[in-house]
Amino acid sequence: MAAMATNRRVILKEYVEGYPREEHMELLPGAEVPLRLTGDEPPGSVLVRNLYLSCDPYMRLKMSRPLRESYTAAFVPGSVITGYGVARVLDSSDPRLAPGDLVWGITGWEDYSVVRPPVTAFLAKISHHGGEGGAPLSYYTGILGMPGLTAYVGFHEICAPKAGETVFVSAASGAVGQLVGQFARLAGCRVVGCAGSAEKVELLRTRFGFHDAFNYKEEPDLAAALRRCFPEGIDIYFENVGGAMLDAVLLNMRVHGRIAVCGLISQYNLADEEKDAVRNLSAVVAKRLRLQGFIEPDHKHLYPKYEAWVLPYIRDGTLAYVEDVAEGLESAPKALIGLFHGRNVGKQLVRIADDAETGA
Amino acid sequence: MAAMATNRRVILKEYVEGYPREEHMELLPGAEVPLRLTGDEPPGSVLVRNLYLSCDPYMRLKMSRPLRESYTAAFVPGSVITGYGVARVLDSSDPRLAPGDLVWGITGWEDYSVVRPPVTAFLAKISHHGGEGGAPLSYYTGILGMPGLTAYVGFHEICAPKAGETVFVSAASGAVGQLVGQFARLAGCRVVGCAGSAEKVELLRTRFGFHDAFNYKEEPDLAAALRRCFPEGIDIYFENVGGAMLDAVLLNMRVHGRIAVCGLISQYNLADEEKDAVRNLSAVVAKRLRLQGFIEPDHKHLYPKYEAWVLPYIRDGTLAYVEDVAEGLESAPKALIGLFHGRNVGKQLVRIADDAETGA
Repeated sequence: MAAMATNRRVILKEYVEGYPREEHMELLPGAEVPLRLTGDEPPGSVLVRNLYLSCDPYMRLKMSRPLRESYTAAFVPGSVITGYGVARVLDSSDPRLAPGDLVWGITGWEDYSVVRPPVTAFLAKISHHGGEGGAPLSYYTGILGMPGLTAYVGFHEICAPKAGETVFVSAASGAVGQLVGQFARLAGCRVVGCAGSAEKVELLRTRFGFHDAFNYKEEPDLAAALRRCFPEGIDIYFENVGGAMLDAVLLNMRVHGRIAVCGLISQYNLADEEKDAVRNLSAVVAKRLRLQGFIEPDHKHLYPKYEAWVLPYIRDGTLAYVEDVAEGLESAPKALIGLFHGRNVGKQLVRIADDAETGA
Repeated sequence: MAAMATNRRVILKEYVEGYPREEHMELLPGAEVPLRLTGDEPPGSVLVRNLYLSCDPYMRLKMSRPLRESYTAAFVPGSVITGYGVARVLDSSDPRLAPGDLVWGITGWEDYSVVRPPVTAFLAKISHHGGEGGAPLSYYTGILGMPGLTAYVGFHEICAPKAGETVFVSAASGAVGQLVGQFARLAGCRVVGCAGSAEKVELLRTRFGFHDAFNYKEEPDLAAALRRCFPEGIDIYFENVGGAMLDAVLLNMRVHGRIAVCGLISQYNLADEEKDAVRNLSAVVAKRLRLQGFIEPDHKHLYPKYEAWVLPYIRDGTLAYVEDVAEGLESAPKALIGLFHGRNVGKQLVRIADDAETGA
């Protein structure tokens, strides 16, 4: 008989309207679960010990009653919350994965998860951890995971930057924004970011090498702030927030500008009728702008190219990556909620177990 | 001494706020002008007899006080209104053009114009008029002119349609929309259009071969109307109007949909704070949409390709083109104003002289 362990789970209690609160989620005490697959799972299933969980803004979209269209299926009240994470394989009937392997991909907000096909397709083996030149395991929730590929695809593939162009990044100290800023600098662009606190703005300037930065909460006129930072206008906008910021950006774009629409975090907690009005779309014609929405799963095939490109920059210290690590599964709901209030400084993740604990 | 003629001119009297009215323009009685270049013009100038003037929505943007950014310089109060037209060359110091040539391009709202460099670069010689297989001269204000290339570039180059895709066109009986609908049908797409009267909707169905059509003024819920016409959603939207229609379309786009933003006529007469709020931009991420603004002058190099493609369809009757022809220079202001109230049925143009009059 297989050894057993205690499995705590974070479930969604009810669909969320407005901002998510802790009472929308619940940490259920442990149930005993076997540390081997039982044979009842569908072929290709994988049992993992979760080590790190990622808190990402898109998760809010899965917490709404599934009325509005989304690219992602809603969570089911009473069921465990799922998201990106890093885990150790304990047992596997997926021929790609063996016990002891480290993986990143879609897992559950719980100590142990059985990942079933087709979700197992999102589990990728981690090969660049530990030893000389290895990256921290937690980076696979960030720079080496979904946010990293998101930043790369959005900036390099969708915006096709040229040296000397100007780049604006909103939510610029976040999981994706801090990377876009640094990628822009590497591409020879002039890059400006905005964030929501003095501490974050300082981080943009000193840690991530943004050429300029501002605190959007202290700017009474966003369009004027952008004019000040970009007297010649913006060639590329990496859009993470939407709403009033997008409206201000539209007024400041240059002819043939490109806007990669990655996310609209300012709008995720608003009912349809509360969403910010965007009124400056006439700039799209006048300036021949391109707005392109994208999501990382459409571009998974680019991960190997991205990983090969980014690893040397991580190893030689060219790229910085700032994480905001919450400790313990019990802190996960609060950490996720914090994203929507800008409480995180850098990539928000949750450490739920030391890798050493897995005995690997 | 050169023969003289009487030259009447339509000037902009003052900058326009809100909807343009006839008192914003004025027909000035004729001044005597020579029918030869005097030698005082800059080298490369061309003297033309104007035959047809084109009324195009973008002209409204040139009538506003030049505060807001535009892709097109404002008109100057007291000066003649300029726009696309068809004309006969009377005299030329441009080596490309000789007396007797027919041309289309940027000219003035007057009987005779001296077109000076660099605007002469927009004058193109008409080679497919008259004789067997020739197209009507007026077509060079429409299907064979700027609106034609606009429809072609926006639909074929920007939207890259595939057979079987669904296409929605707003302002679908207008100069550009009627072509996009027919191009879509030729491309094997299912195409639906909207317009603002029963007469126009009938035209869409019977004359232009739209698969379905509706009168947007009779739809209390635009999003519901689109759901009815596109139960599986819209792959391609050719945007001519903006505002509430765009917001409704965003809710009905399919994943990886494309929106060619050609114009936003519903917004041109509104002050910034009056412009319609667009609130459904979250669809841009969820559905990975691309919105691409464009203007025809950026794509002039495609005209020969377009002309070669479209002429056979005109000659064999595959493509219909409906024109709304106002008679006489004095009717030009009212014809232009009518665009913004949907009074035109088809391409609005003004005939100001019979070609025979030019003696060519």
